[in-house]
Amino acid sequence: MTTQVTSPVRVRATDAADQPERTPELEALYRTFEKQLLIPLWTEIGELMPSQPSSKALPYLWRWQDLLPAAAQAGELVPVGRGGERRAMALANPGLGGRPFATPTLWAAIQYLNPGEDAPVHRHTQNAFRFVVEGEGVWTVVNGDPVAMRRGDFLPQAGWNWHGHHNRSDRAMAWIDGLDIPFQHYTEATFFEFGPDEVETREAPEHSRSERLWAHPGLRPLTHLRPTPSTPLLAYRWEYTDHALSEQLALEADGHAVTVEPGHAAVRYTNPTTGGDVLPTLRTEFHRLAPHTETSPRQETGSSVFQVFDGSGRVTVGAAGWTVERGDLFVVPSWQPLSLATETGMDLFRFTDAPVFERLDLHRSHQEGTQA
Amino acid sequence: MTTQVTSPVRVRATDAADQPERTPELEALYRTFEKQLLIPLWTEIGELMPSQPSSKALPYLWRWQDLLPAAAQAGELVPVGRGGERRAMALANPGLGGRPFATPTLWAAIQYLNPGEDAPVHRHTQNAFRFVVEGEGVWTVVNGDPVAMRRGDFLPQAGWNWHGHHNRSDRAMAWIDGLDIPFQHYTEATFFEFGPDEVETREAPEHSRSERLWAHPGLRPLTHLRPTPSTPLLAYRWEYTDHALSEQLALEADGHAVTVEPGHAAVRYTNPTTGGDVLPTLRTEFHRLAPHTETSPRQETGSSVFQVFDGSGRVTVGAAGWTVERGDLFVVPSWQPLSLATETGMDLFRFTDAPVFERLDLHRSHQEGTQA
Amino acid sequence: MTTQVTSPVRVRATDAADQPERTPELEALYRTFEKQLLIPLWTEIGELMPSQPSSKALPYLWRWQDLLPAAAQAGELVPVGRGGERRAMALANPGLGGRPFATPTLWAAIQYLNPGEDAPVHRHTQNAFRFVVEGEGVWTVVNGDPVAMRRGDFLPQAGWNWHGHHNRSDRAMAWIDGLDIPFQHYTEATFFEFGPDEVETREAPEHSRSERLWAHPGLRPLTHLRPTPSTPLLAYRWEYTDHALSEQLALEADGHAVTVEPGHAAVRYTNPTTGGDVLPTLRTEFHRLAPHTETSPRQETGSSVFQVFDGSGRVTVGAAGWTVERGDLFVVPSWQPLSLATETGMDLFRFTDAPVFERLDLHRSHQEGTQA
Amino acid sequence: MTTQVTSPVRVRATDAADQPERTPELEALYRTFEKQLLIPLWTEIGELMPSQPSSKALPYLWRWQDLLPAAAQAGELVPVGRGGERRAMALANPGLGGRPFATPTLWAAIQYLNPGEDAPVHRHTQNAFRFVVEGEGVWTVVNGDPVAMRRGDFLPQAGWNWHGHHNRSDRAMAWIDGLDIPFQHYTEATFFEFGPDEVETREAPEHSRSERLWAHPGLRPLTHLRPTPSTPLLAYRWEYTDHALSEQLALEADGHAVTVEPGHAAVRYTNPTTGGDVLPTLRTEFHRLAPHTETSPRQETGSSVFQVFDGSGRVTVGAAGWTVERGDLFVVPSWQPLSLATETGMDLFRFTDAPVFERLDLHRSHQEGTQA
Repeated sequence: MTTQVTSPVRVRATDAADQPERTPELEALYRTFEKQLLIPLWTEIGELMPSQPSSKALPYLWRWQDLLPAAAQAGELVPVGRGGERRAMALANPGLGGRPFATPTLWAAIQYLNPGEDAPVHRHTQNAFRFVVEGEGVWTVVNGDPVAMRRGDFLPQAGWNWHGHHNRSDRAMAWIDGLDIPFQHYTEATFFEFGPDEVETREAPEHSRSERLWAHPGLRPLTHLRPTPSTPLLAYRWEYTDHALSEQLALEADGHAVTVEPGHAAVRYTNPTTGGDVLPTLRTEFHRLAPHTETSPRQETGSSVFQVFDGSGRVTVGAAGWTVERGDLFVVPSWQPLSLATETGMDLFRFTDAPVFERLDLHRSHQEGTQA
Repeated sequence: MTTQVTSPVRVRATDAADQPERTPELEALYRTFEKQLLIPLWTEIGELMPSQPSSKALPYLWRWQDLLPAAAQAGELVPVGRGGERRAMALANPGLGGRPFATPTLWAAIQYLNPGEDAPVHRHTQNAFRFVVEGEGVWTVVNGDPVAMRRGDFLPQAGWNWHGHHNRSDRAMAWIDGLDIPFQHYTEATFFEFGPDEVETREAPEHSRSERLWAHPGLRPLTHLRPTPSTPLLAYRWEYTDHALSEQLALEADGHAVTVEPGHAAVRYTNPTTGGDVLPTLRTEFHRLAPHTETSPRQETGSSVFQVFDGSGRVTVGAAGWTVERGDLFVVPSWQPLSLATETGMDLFRFTDAPVFERLDLHRSHQEGTQA
Repeated sequence: MTTQVTSPVRVRATDAADQPERTPELEALYRTFEKQLLIPLWTEIGELMPSQPSSKALPYLWRWQDLLPAAAQAGELVPVGRGGERRAMALANPGLGGRPFATPTLWAAIQYLNPGEDAPVHRHTQNAFRFVVEGEGVWTVVNGDPVAMRRGDFLPQAGWNWHGHHNRSDRAMAWIDGLDIPFQHYTEATFFEFGPDEVETREAPEHSRSERLWAHPGLRPLTHLRPTPSTPLLAYRWEYTDHALSEQLALEADGHAVTVEPGHAAVRYTNPTTGGDVLPTLRTEFHRLAPHTETSPRQETGSSVFQVFDGSGRVTVGAAGWTVERGDLFVVPSWQPLSLATETGMDLFRFTDAPVFERLDLHRSHQEGTQA
Repeated sequence: MTTQVTSPVRVRATDAADQPERTPELEALYRTFEKQLLIPLWTEIGELMPSQPSSKALPYLWRWQDLLPAAAQAGELVPVGRGGERRAMALANPGLGGRPFATPTLWAAIQYLNPGEDAPVHRHTQNAFRFVVEGEGVWTVVNGDPVAMRRGDFLPQAGWNWHGHHNRSDRAMAWIDGLDIPFQHYTEATFFEFGPDEVETREAPEHSRSERLWAHPGLRPLTHLRPTPSTPLLAYRWEYTDHALSEQLALEADGHAVTVEPGHAAVRYTNPTTGGDVLPTLRTEFHRLAPHTETSPRQETGSSVFQVFDGSGRVTVGAAGWTVERGDLFVVPSWQPLSLATETGMDLFRFTDAPVFERLDLHRSHQEGTQA
């Protein structure tokens, strides 16, 4: 029976208690199903509809002290240019079958640019951002607007905007790219276009035009009054983030309940035209733990990637746990409880796919000792 | 090096023009990447970031005349009950590696219930609906509200509501289930809970309570004024759908531009509390083609499943094409151009994952001869 | 000092305890204020900022048995045509200084059209609707779409749409017009334009095009998918309203909590494109009291006009109270407690300015025996 | 006929061409109308439904050099305290019948506080803000949070928050209060409550807690993620406003189209939780005209109050026009064309009732030489 042989479909054979008895008639029916490209729910339901989220992704840690030398070696051996487009090395979660995916939805990579190099201009529907844990000297040029990248800066860049990078300095620079590549790959709805091989401008201003227009708290240019799906602000500078977090801890010390939990300050990066997330599929946050702080375990649908920005501490994700320090990246799969602890203080950048879940009414979270 | 051997990660080996030369140093670097669970973008970008959507799913047709007998045989051989939960057989797209997925995001199955049988009560975060191409006699009981199912009816049922089905008649009944199982499986954010083995009530009213409360055009009970993420109306009856479509064609005949294109009437099922889609992840529509109508090819990001409800015609999806008739189900993968043609008239039910794309700002469409 | 004499401003003279002593210096300062067109807050605050709403409008009742003969007399003596535009007589609340305003924000008038007459076509930014307590034979033509008017029908018509009316029958017809004329008059933002003297069409179809396109519960034409600020449905027919209310009472009798309070069914007319109010400034509802029902007193910011559609009962508004019957209209000023009681059952149509309050975050309500 | 005599209603007597002939029968009918508290539309329509907005408010200018001395005199003669609540003197538009209203919807007053004085704590549903054209030394305490007031600062304070002011310095201070008092007075939906006679705290920090939590561009505390109808940020400091405007002009000089029109920079104050207006009924903006700038005439529904913050220039509002300088306040009634011109540069603060119009779908504007 050639059709049977070539059919890509197999009905799961099992003698489990909740399955019908495997009579010859049933086996014949299963062969009919396979020919017709049908699969019964009753053999699949356990895996497809578990009682609670069970992620294939594993909690995992990548150490900056390993990543950076590997990236530097790529800087020596691998040119950056058209076709490959970026000298970026993606975190590949060991649970995800060898795909370059940090979690089922999130891409996290270290990108490396030598002095004088250009990463060529292109655009894609994937939403992206860069976060800088150390170094400076690169400008990312977004739709012709040159945006300096420096330690602590968060630089979002929404889908379908032209962008390239160039290193104006005499030192190589590395940073983290975060994108929704795995999610958009899954959705099979992506578009990509090549632009010029070199960035449109070599100007290297202290502040991008987007900042000069938008980085004023609570103020909006009268020429830009419509809400936009993604943030128009291309750089969220470290000085503001740092200041916001310090103030939260200072207010807490004065007795005001403004922190997530004792010693745990946090901000979300937002789109000033809506107050919502910076990108339609990606949420980004910065968390600061004061010395001697331990967070209570929290579970959330959807996945996260964290990078330790400063300090050090102990991270527990489900059954896994690591001691972490500056630059280390770790992954929190869906519904795995996360807790953080530090003796000396720790700063962490976080990005997640939470907007996907919230916009589709699929978000749930649970924190120990709290309701809902 | 045992670590290398067990690492799930492999860097793609290729001599393509846009790849760096495969020197021993590069190969050594790639082994380092693998050890560190890193994958370069430059070996993956072609597949991950194509210039336009390229779906793994294939256009495919399932014929009702094949589906129904297979389901009937399952009715004889496979009991329905706790564990297996439903006597449902899912369409398995031949491009999707033997998974029971009609498209990467959508589940479509034929469900079959014998006289007197109960499909046990459960609830899950997956959003679901039923559509009836023929037959009657089953009531689906949603949170204790019994909803009759009859030819032409569309019966949505949002995630996390208790539901079971029972067949009150003396004849077996089959219908189509549509769910976002593949999408929610991908998101790893699903919850499932068992309820009683039998439905809460054997009442079999003509109209469900939800209809008595909600199926009045433009009217809303004063006790239910908040928008809800999913529709509170549990049955969209055929008489209304049929009437709405007839009126569109009659208005078109009178010279009013109310159809999608000449001879092509269509309605979307909506949530009366918002005017938006019935379910957060699923869009459902009904299309009617007048005799001698041919639609112009249309591309859309995201995927669809159609069921022919009545009449017959010719369907073209990308390079594939079929002559279709009552009950036949076919799949339109992302960005594959679809056109429909009929000599004698054709009615089609459609469901898609479009809300996912629209809510995440990822939706694009293109119709021949039109802009954007 | 001529300037003083002609200044329109006077500072309130009072010896109240909370006022500064009226020394000659103070009086001179007050004269300076007047010259400069300044008024102190301290002499005005009591009236401007009361501890709770205190409406100038009075609870008041207009009896249909008085209104209809007066309107009929106008039908004999007053032609309808260009300039006067409509043979409409507005309820003038006795607390509002002789203005033709039912409440500070709402216009309510009885309009009367003789057989064969046309009310000429015009458009204005004011939002309007018609409600028919008895009679038939008139078609209102909105943007060329003829809409039959019959007992129990509610016919909204958003600002800036062309509209005229014509009486196709051999009997005069009267109905109620509701508009936001007082509110828009206050805002000083209104536009008005004349159209043809006669309606564009004498067609008199059973159903308007808008109904044929939109009056299908939960269904939306695929050609009209954007939310619109006002409802596209031009007629909400009595049969649907009546049925929705009967079903609520029947469900209540079966033990389901779907009524506002025991014996009190109610629906809100909504915009099917949003689920919200039919018009941006006007809310409309229909209430049915079963026999032997008494509602508990309810206060709300904003004002309402009710018309008794059927049955009879007792209305209490603050200190006022009346026995009412078919066609009677009464006014509920802001924050005045309203309660309704009936022995034999009573149907009421209601319209209010509630959207103004809700959209500006000014809405408050209080029902006896409930929180917030 | 006593009823006639006491009826507050009079039908307008006129022999205009579009009115019915004043026969004895008609006069008798009009008397009937009056007895029944009815007013015909046809005698009123001209005034109620004009072809375009015709505001009763007049364009008018108040000079700071007059206001400040009058306020200072009040500082000598009028105590501030419970009952009068505030030493505030409101601009009374000469077209508004002697009411303390700058426009039909807007309240604008100069408030004056002597060294050491407290304006007592209260709360009201009216939305308010302060704007400081000169001076410092006062802290406004909002829900216990002390907010310094200094030149150029904009200090919003939403309805129903407790607030008082105290002057910590040894000099008197004056500032501008803007509120929606006239609008809320019209709506008859206001509540007011007294708090303590003195402010809760004499602390005088450089920055309020609200700033420490919220004045970080694009950053949002994780503990405050819900949209709020009014801004949580209690001070928009001059340094940010000034910087944002300078940058707009600098970007314009570099060839970027970021200004309203050549030489005309402007920002809107926004609620960081939504990107929308700071208060549900009030919009506030700051405009900067570069030297040698003239704006093109612009009409808008709704009214505005401007205060010149710096520089000088020429203002034209409809038929009125003035030369203005620092501190001067002027009023732009609905639909009156406004243009501004300056030789030496001019900074202006503006507040309007625009949110009322936009949220109720009543907003229209027209700028010469542009569409819509």
